Amino acid sequence: MNQTAKNIGAMLEQVRANVPLIHNITNYVTVNDVANAVLAIGASPIMADDIGEAGDISAISSALVINMGTLNERTIASMIAAGKRANECGVPVVFDPVGAGASALRNDTALKIVSEVKLAVLRGNLSEISFIAGLDVATKGVDSAAADEKNDAVAVAKSVADSLGCTVAITGAIDTISDGKQTVQLRNGHPQLSKVTGTGCMTSALVGSFAGAANGDFFTAAAGGVLSMGLAGEIAYEKAGSIGTGSFHIAIIDALSNLDAKTIGERAKLDEK
Amino acid sequence: MNQTAKNIGAMLEQVRANVPLIHNITNYVTVNDVANAVLAIGASPIMADDIGEAGDISAISSALVINMGTLNERTIASMIAAGKRANECGVPVVFDPVGAGASALRNDTALKIVSEVKLAVLRGNLSEISFIAGLDVATKGVDSAAADEKNDAVAVAKSVADSLGCTVAITGAIDTISDGKQTVQLRNGHPQLSKVTGTGCMTSALVGSFAGAANGDFFTAAAGGVLSMGLAGEIAYEKAGSIGTGSFHIAIIDALSNLDAKTIGERAKLDEK
Amino acid sequence: MNQTAKNIGAMLEQVRANVPLIHNITNYVTVNDVANAVLAIGASPIMADDIGEAGDISAISSALVINMGTLNERTIASMIAAGKRANECGVPVVFDPVGAGASALRNDTALKIVSEVKLAVLRGNLSEISFIAGLDVATKGVDSAAADEKNDAVAVAKSVADSLGCTVAITGAIDTISDGKQTVQLRNGHPQLSKVTGTGCMTSALVGSFAGAANGDFFTAAAGGVLSMGLAGEIAYEKAGSIGTGSFHIAIIDALSNLDAKTIGERAKLDEK
Repeated sequence: MNQTAKNIGAMLEQVRANVPLIHNITNYVTVNDVANAVLAIGASPIMADDIGEAGDISAISSALVINMGTLNERTIASMIAAGKRANECGVPVVFDPVGAGASALRNDTALKIVSEVKLAVLRGNLSEISFIAGLDVATKGVDSAAADEKNDAVAVAKSVADSLGCTVAITGAIDTISDGKQTVQLRNGHPQLSKVTGTGCMTSALVGSFAGAANGDFFTAAAGGVLSMGLAGEIAYEKAGSIGTGSFHIAIIDALSNLDAKTIGERAKLDEK
Repeated sequence: MNQTAKNIGAMLEQVRANVPLIHNITNYVTVNDVANAVLAIGASPIMADDIGEAGDISAISSALVINMGTLNERTIASMIAAGKRANECGVPVVFDPVGAGASALRNDTALKIVSEVKLAVLRGNLSEISFIAGLDVATKGVDSAAADEKNDAVAVAKSVADSLGCTVAITGAIDTISDGKQTVQLRNGHPQLSKVTGTGCMTSALVGSFAGAANGDFFTAAAGGVLSMGLAGEIAYEKAGSIGTGSFHIAIIDALSNLDAKTIGERAKLDEK
Repeated sequence: MNQTAKNIGAMLEQVRANVPLIHNITNYVTVNDVANAVLAIGASPIMADDIGEAGDISAISSALVINMGTLNERTIASMIAAGKRANECGVPVVFDPVGAGASALRNDTALKIVSEVKLAVLRGNLSEISFIAGLDVATKGVDSAAADEKNDAVAVAKSVADSLGCTVAITGAIDTISDGKQTVQLRNGHPQLSKVTGTGCMTSALVGSFAGAANGDFFTAAAGGVLSMGLAGEIAYEKAGSIGTGSFHIAIIDALSNLDAKTIGERAKLDEK
């Protein structure tokens, strides 16, 4: 078995043993799935986005996940405040810049967060991460624009990892994770994952769940969260993919709740780059 | 096959081919189902309700769906701003006046939106549309009041279509769609649809999904969105209705994801009036 | 059959016959499940949290459920305003102090609500209710802290019921309901309920649904809501527990929609204390 897959399996067992509290400031579209994915992988979710408590909740959590899917003026302030407090307390921060590139508000917010908050992991699709890298992008709403596939995910991931000093996970047909030194690509997953809203948001929250039990190894945490969703998508497709996207959606959560180190070892398709 | 059913089938194929971006300013109760319904029918959802980006997102979208289910002062301003920007850009606007008649805030907001934003389609239950028509209504919360069934849906739909210059869809046991010139009634659907929250919201978003590929034919778009939910309800009931309302809910999304022109041709119960 | 179980069965039939309108000011994480649970048990949900209509909606409802899961400055004001209006109109108020003990904002809000709004039922886990009782607690996020199991639920429930003059429901492995005079413990439910987000929120909304048809008997309403979720959890586990937490989640709603007085009579494990 690949060493990264082995490390991910061991970290999953830590998540299930420690049940880390994961603070999510996230969008209202996919928040229920995010909470259930966090529970399914073995962690404990808490959602709190008022400026009056965001920092306090981050301070008692094992990881903070900031997702700007339905950002607004009120929650942007809370994201920044919670991120800064997490930094002060040594709580790892995962950032999902949903739709970066799609509006001035999203662009400004994404850049503000990466400049004011020290990240452990940045996770997005190639359009979003390319925007943060300062590359030319053609975002179409919140889904990755096919046109951007021209950007080389490995190069983009390495470059952003270096400039931000964090692990970067770029998800797509092939997923790329890099901390600048180590880089891995994952070939798990299923195209039907793009027909269910929130699989990206859930992935970021799974990365946060692993980060909450990572003991500083955020490269493995990022790979673990991304791989968990990839495997869940594959397994869900086998069980329910042909029934329809509603049943497939439910089967994703089922698969996450049943995921274990053995399955990871047997099914992970990881290439060290 | 009925000509309207044929047109709807062809438009569904356009939705699946074009994958139009559908901007939804909607309520937080049913937003996940709305996004998944839009994906299931073949379009791409984006939710954005901050005044700082609502107009920008509408401008890059193929349709805007405004749903006032959990309206608040902040989002009402965004609804109006996005609606006006959509009008400027020629992006069709679908409006779902959830609970119009139930509170002064809802009444004022519904009337403000229909007076300030030019609609392509107005979709609601008979209570809600009757309120907009200025008729006497007895709304009970956000569900259609049985008492209002006395109002004649065909007459109400035609009258409001004429006064607002848009297509009006009144959904209920029988659905009525009119643009003032053409009127059709649909007899698909299932009573159990009223036991799952959000079937009305999903219907409006499906209308928006069709409108995003309608090339100006909003009568067909409205009928297409309403018929899609009716057929999905029927098929879902056949598959899972007897299991319980949770399974029925999931089966609705399954059926939407499997819907095609052939099924529409075979099952649509449409009467031109 | 136990008299409380008999009373609950009869009240469930009243809920299904009357279809009471239940106003929920609740969190955006679990709101869809809350609405579907209310529909499944036979009542009609409405969500409205703007200060401009919260009181008006409470005034036309049969019960108000306040859940502070994702409270913010805007919605806290609406909770208080709606609660006061409900009190004026004789509409019963159910309060779920989600996460009380976890942040200063939650603590202040919980205490403000219990001091300014007269409750019919207070429902929470032992950590949350112990906080309101002024006891020493160790809340971990929004889930009950195991450490707090040292507090005696029966004593805490009775004491808070006496001091607030309402029915108190403390849910956990064993559920305790007391109005200060009568106390009952329920031994239904399943541990897997803690792996799905929102089972507590749904329980509070079910209590609200029963309260909307309770004719003043809020002890039975509280026991009915709690028992409904316990039985739904048991039945859902039998049907789908081994598949995964996604399928189990859906099966909970299925079971609620099928629940009847006969099942309650056969399965309820109630001990009068």
